[in-house]
Amino acid sequence: MKIAAANLESFCTQALLRAGVNDADARTTADVLVTTDTWGVFTHGTKSLRGYIRRLRGGGLRAGARPRVVSEGPAWAMVDADSALGMVGSTFAMRVAIAKARAAGIGYVGVRNSCHFGAAGYYAVMAADEGMVGLAMANDIPSVTVPGSRGAVLGSNPFSFAAPSGEKYPVFLDVATSVVAGGKVFAAAARGAEIPRNWLVDAEGVPTTNPKLFPQQAALVPMAAHKGYGLALLIETISGMVTGASIASHVVSWSFGDATIPTGHGAAFLAIDIEKMIPGNQFRERMAQTLREIREAPKSAGAARIYIPGEMEWERREQALREGIELPEDVSASLHLLAKELGISLA
Amino acid sequence: MKIAAANLESFCTQALLRAGVNDADARTTADVLVTTDTWGVFTHGTKSLRGYIRRLRGGGLRAGARPRVVSEGPAWAMVDADSALGMVGSTFAMRVAIAKARAAGIGYVGVRNSCHFGAAGYYAVMAADEGMVGLAMANDIPSVTVPGSRGAVLGSNPFSFAAPSGEKYPVFLDVATSVVAGGKVFAAAARGAEIPRNWLVDAEGVPTTNPKLFPQQAALVPMAAHKGYGLALLIETISGMVTGASIASHVVSWSFGDATIPTGHGAAFLAIDIEKMIPGNQFRERMAQTLREIREAPKSAGAARIYIPGEMEWERREQALREGIELPEDVSASLHLLAKELGISLA
Repeated sequence: MKIAAANLESFCTQALLRAGVNDADARTTADVLVTTDTWGVFTHGTKSLRGYIRRLRGGGLRAGARPRVVSEGPAWAMVDADSALGMVGSTFAMRVAIAKARAAGIGYVGVRNSCHFGAAGYYAVMAADEGMVGLAMANDIPSVTVPGSRGAVLGSNPFSFAAPSGEKYPVFLDVATSVVAGGKVFAAAARGAEIPRNWLVDAEGVPTTNPKLFPQQAALVPMAAHKGYGLALLIETISGMVTGASIASHVVSWSFGDATIPTGHGAAFLAIDIEKMIPGNQFRERMAQTLREIREAPKSAGAARIYIPGEMEWERREQALREGIELPEDVSASLHLLAKELGISLA
Repeated sequence: MKIAAANLESFCTQALLRAGVNDADARTTADVLVTTDTWGVFTHGTKSLRGYIRRLRGGGLRAGARPRVVSEGPAWAMVDADSALGMVGSTFAMRVAIAKARAAGIGYVGVRNSCHFGAAGYYAVMAADEGMVGLAMANDIPSVTVPGSRGAVLGSNPFSFAAPSGEKYPVFLDVATSVVAGGKVFAAAARGAEIPRNWLVDAEGVPTTNPKLFPQQAALVPMAAHKGYGLALLIETISGMVTGASIASHVVSWSFGDATIPTGHGAAFLAIDIEKMIPGNQFRERMAQTLREIREAPKSAGAARIYIPGEMEWERREQALREGIELPEDVSASLHLLAKELGISLA
């Protein structure tokens, strides 16, 4: 189905208000989810809203949560997200990281008692919009093997980076440390499609093309083998171990777990205030020149264009804002079901 | 050839002294290179010494360089490495990052006028040895394609992370953002071996198993495609663009380039002082428990053990310190040539 971004945002806001979330937090969450859909990252956008509302109703997510700084120093803070919606705790934490960076040059904010935060890229872009380099990451329940393991050991721990580009939109990267995010496997299963052989291994540790085995009888493969494994452990370290969040197998699944208990996710946000180190216009010129050189590089056979990280997402967003968001089947099905459950209409 | 670590270190120190490097800097450089060899990472250890000395004699590396902080704030500093040996500027910069982290919780230090710094892991481990999380990274000349390009566009920009483990040795990861580091291709070429099909593409952008084409007629492939590309751009951003270093195609090759001019590499070092955020013993217990859970996970068919990131390197080091370092052919050939050129003996 096609829907105007403003209408989808208003639907999400309304649904969250019905679940007892206050107006500001509902709008924040709706903006994160709809922005993600406009990027074409449908696995991490409004598709998850019904699951979040199930947790809000169960009490595992707290509608009245108040994320707060529990300890801090010149360039860092630890945030207890109070089991707020992941978007509420994460935007709060990134704002603190930006403020710390403004004061000290760099800011690191760790979060405990968080939940699934959707697309990491949203938070990294918040820093880029303030002229800073932004990094955002989080841990999650085990869904990924490590080299030598048969089943899932670590989460697909997402990682994002964004920076001002000297162009219209910031550069940004938003990736899982598995070959693909679990959401892509679920989406393939919903479409009845097979998946490439390098995404999943079955319960015996053998590659499989059947997405329906995931997550009970299959696990994701780490990106670039030991490299993705190591990056996932780095993310676990600064999102989970330092922050006091739950770690790896101790995190509760936001989608399948008991909705009455908090998931205990951890997350980490960093911002670097470029202007302190180099005049902003010089930085932007250097970035813009590098991006120009990348785009103008000789193309491989069959490649019409070289994309800058994030460029596909920004182009999809411009089209979505102009023409409406074309929601995939699984997303619109989930939203229609939610609309029916709440007795509100999906325009 | 097999050589005692102490003898190899003394040889390196002597060679550097002959090239006009002062005693402290020679010892620092020797320690970085020999530690790297003890880890079994022979592509980034003493094999490079002859190339560094060629640059010291040419003047592109300055024997009398004095790396210094040129601007700073509470949690950051910019270092001009004054075209010192990469190991000299990088250990200086990581010490500054550690001091900033001690004061502010996190420290970010960017470096310009650096050179090839060897194994990124050495610097990350410096922070871990101080009870901190350490990150180290650097840019390099283009040797890696980006999705859609035929030839090299970005460097294989290395990245490292280390953290205290609650065990004997810190965990650490040290990776190139290409499928493999260029050094592994050179090593295969030196052995006359073929390489796997996913390492390189030839001048037409077609995968090749011939390592001898690299770097003139072939380019490395980014790890995990767009993910490695995005990470390389992040590293370029905080190592190069923020610091005022040379970027991508503007960096000079430390091994093939004119030895009379500086290479202009950039680098970045971060340290997070864990103790500020969580009591050190709690952190170490959390890490140790996670590592235990990883090691004890059910194994895939044929896997005897699951390794923690860095564990193979520490085991190789223990053996090397006990029994001597078994240098591969290409490394010992390079060292013997250097010994002959300098008229000193390789014990």
